[in-house]
Amino acid sequence: MAIDTGDTAWMILSTAMVFLMIGGVGFLEAGLIRAKNALGILMKVYQTATIGLIAWFIIGFSLAFAPSEHGWIGTFDYAFMRGVTLEPMDYAPTIPGYLFFLFQGMFAAITVALISGGIAERMRFGPWLVFIFIWMIFVYGPVAHWIWGGGWLAQMGARDWAGGIVIHVAAGFSSLAGALALGRRLGFGKAETMAQHNVPYQFLAAFLLWFGWNGFNGGSALASNEAAVAAIVSTNLAAAAGAITTLLAGWAKSKKPSTSLAANGCIAGLAAVTPAAGFIEAWAGVVIGAVAGVVFYGFVLLFKEKLRVDDACDVIAIHGMTGVWGSMGVALFASPMVTGGALVGVAYGSAELVGVQALAIVVTAAFAFTLTYIIMQIMNKVTPIRLKPQEEEAGEDVVLHGEKAYLTV
Amino acid sequence: MAIDTGDTAWMILSTAMVFLMIGGVGFLEAGLIRAKNALGILMKVYQTATIGLIAWFIIGFSLAFAPSEHGWIGTFDYAFMRGVTLEPMDYAPTIPGYLFFLFQGMFAAITVALISGGIAERMRFGPWLVFIFIWMIFVYGPVAHWIWGGGWLAQMGARDWAGGIVIHVAAGFSSLAGALALGRRLGFGKAETMAQHNVPYQFLAAFLLWFGWNGFNGGSALASNEAAVAAIVSTNLAAAAGAITTLLAGWAKSKKPSTSLAANGCIAGLAAVTPAAGFIEAWAGVVIGAVAGVVFYGFVLLFKEKLRVDDACDVIAIHGMTGVWGSMGVALFASPMVTGGALVGVAYGSAELVGVQALAIVVTAAFAFTLTYIIMQIMNKVTPIRLKPQEEEAGEDVVLHGEKAYLTV
Amino acid sequence: MAIDTGDTAWMILSTAMVFLMIGGVGFLEAGLIRAKNALGILMKVYQTATIGLIAWFIIGFSLAFAPSEHGWIGTFDYAFMRGVTLEPMDYAPTIPGYLFFLFQGMFAAITVALISGGIAERMRFGPWLVFIFIWMIFVYGPVAHWIWGGGWLAQMGARDWAGGIVIHVAAGFSSLAGALALGRRLGFGKAETMAQHNVPYQFLAAFLLWFGWNGFNGGSALASNEAAVAAIVSTNLAAAAGAITTLLAGWAKSKKPSTSLAANGCIAGLAAVTPAAGFIEAWAGVVIGAVAGVVFYGFVLLFKEKLRVDDACDVIAIHGMTGVWGSMGVALFASPMVTGGALVGVAYGSAELVGVQALAIVVTAAFAFTLTYIIMQIMNKVTPIRLKPQEEEAGEDVVLHGEKAYLTV
Repeated sequence: MAIDTGDTAWMILSTAMVFLMIGGVGFLEAGLIRAKNALGILMKVYQTATIGLIAWFIIGFSLAFAPSEHGWIGTFDYAFMRGVTLEPMDYAPTIPGYLFFLFQGMFAAITVALISGGIAERMRFGPWLVFIFIWMIFVYGPVAHWIWGGGWLAQMGARDWAGGIVIHVAAGFSSLAGALALGRRLGFGKAETMAQHNVPYQFLAAFLLWFGWNGFNGGSALASNEAAVAAIVSTNLAAAAGAITTLLAGWAKSKKPSTSLAANGCIAGLAAVTPAAGFIEAWAGVVIGAVAGVVFYGFVLLFKEKLRVDDACDVIAIHGMTGVWGSMGVALFASPMVTGGALVGVAYGSAELVGVQALAIVVTAAFAFTLTYIIMQIMNKVTPIRLKPQEEEAGEDVVLHGEKAYLTV
Repeated sequence: MAIDTGDTAWMILSTAMVFLMIGGVGFLEAGLIRAKNALGILMKVYQTATIGLIAWFIIGFSLAFAPSEHGWIGTFDYAFMRGVTLEPMDYAPTIPGYLFFLFQGMFAAITVALISGGIAERMRFGPWLVFIFIWMIFVYGPVAHWIWGGGWLAQMGARDWAGGIVIHVAAGFSSLAGALALGRRLGFGKAETMAQHNVPYQFLAAFLLWFGWNGFNGGSALASNEAAVAAIVSTNLAAAAGAITTLLAGWAKSKKPSTSLAANGCIAGLAAVTPAAGFIEAWAGVVIGAVAGVVFYGFVLLFKEKLRVDDACDVIAIHGMTGVWGSMGVALFASPMVTGGALVGVAYGSAELVGVQALAIVVTAAFAFTLTYIIMQIMNKVTPIRLKPQEEEAGEDVVLHGEKAYLTV
Repeated sequence: MAIDTGDTAWMILSTAMVFLMIGGVGFLEAGLIRAKNALGILMKVYQTATIGLIAWFIIGFSLAFAPSEHGWIGTFDYAFMRGVTLEPMDYAPTIPGYLFFLFQGMFAAITVALISGGIAERMRFGPWLVFIFIWMIFVYGPVAHWIWGGGWLAQMGARDWAGGIVIHVAAGFSSLAGALALGRRLGFGKAETMAQHNVPYQFLAAFLLWFGWNGFNGGSALASNEAAVAAIVSTNLAAAAGAITTLLAGWAKSKKPSTSLAANGCIAGLAAVTPAAGFIEAWAGVVIGAVAGVVFYGFVLLFKEKLRVDDACDVIAIHGMTGVWGSMGVALFASPMVTGGALVGVAYGSAELVGVQALAIVVTAAFAFTLTYIIMQIMNKVTPIRLKPQEEEAGEDVVLHGEKAYLTV
């Protein structure tokens, strides 16, 4: 097929919007943590775009999307973008292959970015840079290949619209692994000293992420078509519904409606709807989002308060567990009207997707968790990846970077 | 007609850009008020997107755009998006109906968001959530139906390109009503203690709003065509002109060029050009914007200093009165070159639009003001909608939400 | 040719994205300087969009793009947009002429905006407003005409994809001239007292600029086509590569990886790839960006530490010298695959572009530097353009604007 100007315009924009979301992740996490580590986390997130894209260029794209023999991992055929041109690839027949490469590269970068939330306020900078590269090769490449690159899970029928499994489950469980590998922050659990330092940043991030998610979920149609539109409609409604239920759940428990929690609520809805967005009708977006807000809040309480796991920015709850829910949502809500009958969910009479979605979720969660934990442990043998206590006390910004975020006097 | 990929790409983006403007409104108002209420206003604005979109899904869209018998208000035919599909609707024949729904939903949400400027720093949170829902049903739904849904004003010939009447006049006069219903903030008029706490936020907002307004006014063509382009050209020129005249007017009066005022100036131009943007030539955008900068500043002085009305973020002046001016601007400047002769303004020899535009403005202003005032009064009977004096002194962030915006130490 | 909806959608967005970059410039520079001048610089940058667009409307567009007799400067044919309509112009045959006007207007505005970095923290406000207008007429108009308006350099074969010469070289050398004309800031060179006041602003700016640069470089295809895609792919890879090499270069020298420097690094890559983006393959984007990171850092050290020139925000290094490098990059890396053979670089066997690119760079740099210096000197004769020492000490925000950026107490 020929290049379509409308599809190309839309996909360029989607690509740029997913990039902007990386900034959103940075400001979300910076806002959630203490001022003394604000630059540390912004820097770590920013480098996922820089090192991430170069890693994608060198080898990541090839591992994910090059042909494979048994569906386990792509070959090196597309390494350094060999064979990727301005002609369309089969994945997206109406846009240049270059553009498919870049759009997918932003997805890879933002996935690593999310993991930074688990290791915030205590990981060294150099090891993080190495981690970005390694994780993209050993975790993201395979998982993306299994589901989006024509690999074994795709062949079994698992479906993931825009990354509920590939991105949110993988990043969520990797963040959990990172949090466990590093151990808790000093002072963890003391609400007074650990409070978020800048809630307006969280709102800025919420607006940027919600905005960008239109490109994230809409762009996953790889064209400017009905599926893209279905995706953004369910996406926006899920964001709204998730924000409302998170607000109400937190309000019920803590008596005051938390702004910090509310700003996160839309993200729970957005993450949850991601795997299903382009397969479902609008009403299902509301349902997925509404449930996601409660799922998110419940798992924050479970992981942070009950299990005392220090996933600093709650990535396992807000991305991981909502990703699980939304990925099952595909099996529940996929609508013949939107998919043209290609996928049919439980709500429309077919349970055919339930098993394979559950399988894909469990495999990905286990794989991402295990490999991330092992990578962190091996890296820690080579050189300590955690700050020393007195360094952690002083803060990453001064200790690691020799700078302060703010000099307003 | 079939779905057009270019039109669809453009309308998805426009929708996302209008959403981003809600963030712009949040940061504009947060910057304009005191730090102790920064989270309070960000939260209120943010919830207009969440509750606003859900209200739009449930009933708002139907009231505005479903068919009606006498042009007063739409039926419940589209409630819960019944009958809205991926097929185009008559309103926008080249994009999916789902997309028209969402684009209009963002308009509805941002309109309520604007009203928050009038009640800033003193309204309870719960009542505000209720207000969002009620206002969308009782004020936005009818007014949108009258002018955009084929209602009685549309049938009489009133025209409103992107919401000078439906959005800016309605929100401006509702903000005024809200300000009067709540009464002045404690300490109102004392420049030293009431000063804006973060002017960079205002600039951030000005950039986000100006950026997003391209989607707002350009998207109102509902296609990627000449009218969309005419709209964004007049929009950008009006923003520039409005910023310059506001700057000069303020400079002449207060001897120093205020940055806070200047950042607002572009918004005056943008609001004013909104009803006319896709009907006029570029030069008329300059004229409408330039006059709007002075209109805005003049009415700030009138309402705030003379009448001592505490519309905290000057919504009546910056949106309401500029909306009045720009809506008359349709009657003055509508150009046959841009409209293909469908609308002809005074500058091109026809006064046919003068009366009906004036009527639409007056009716909408009176309706929005009256209903908003009544809604606030009724709500206040049920439960007090204003903070107690000592709560207002302490600030919304701590009192309502138990949080502080900044912890930079 | 007829209007294409995809091309039009893309170009409207590109235009809006370049506008948003002006905000990015504002926050980048505000972050890099001291809190007491934050509003001063935001205000100066903001006014380049307001006065800049009006100047573009009145005369700038005509000087740059109207026909000329000898290729020196456009006539007044398009002054006040006379003759510019919704019909396509020859420059961009598939979008309305109005849109070409506005897209180019954003380029003009952001070019002046960049110059503000050189004169930051010490120039009066009124003279800056006059400078915007004068510079656009006497410097930007001619240079844009020479290279993009069919002028003498274009006729000789010089090529500049998206403004390496017209924008980055011109702005960089003008910033240098401005810095020299004004002299150094009080306290220049004292790291402790001159440190950047808000590094998160720099990251916000980096994300906004990188995001917007997709419109800047991609939009310079003036269509949603393969060249646009080639441009954004090389653009993103260059940004990533530049950020990495800047980080490493600074880390090697100062022992700690600076976040402030790193946030700038992507901009070096972005500026460098601008003149070449739509002519080169992806790998060349990586090369241009990687070298640019080092070029930028090296010239910061040269200008700021060796020569002690106070180009406050390093515009000469980050835009000027990277622009020189990237503009020669066209001659080195232009690929037949991307250009269809229209341009062939040294890497593909042809040195034909080397001479003319060098000529265009040298002429533009000399012209921009000289004229800007002369303009500043003449203006200074009329009225002092620099703050008095005690005013500079007190800060622009209070002295010039009577306001403070932050009131967080």
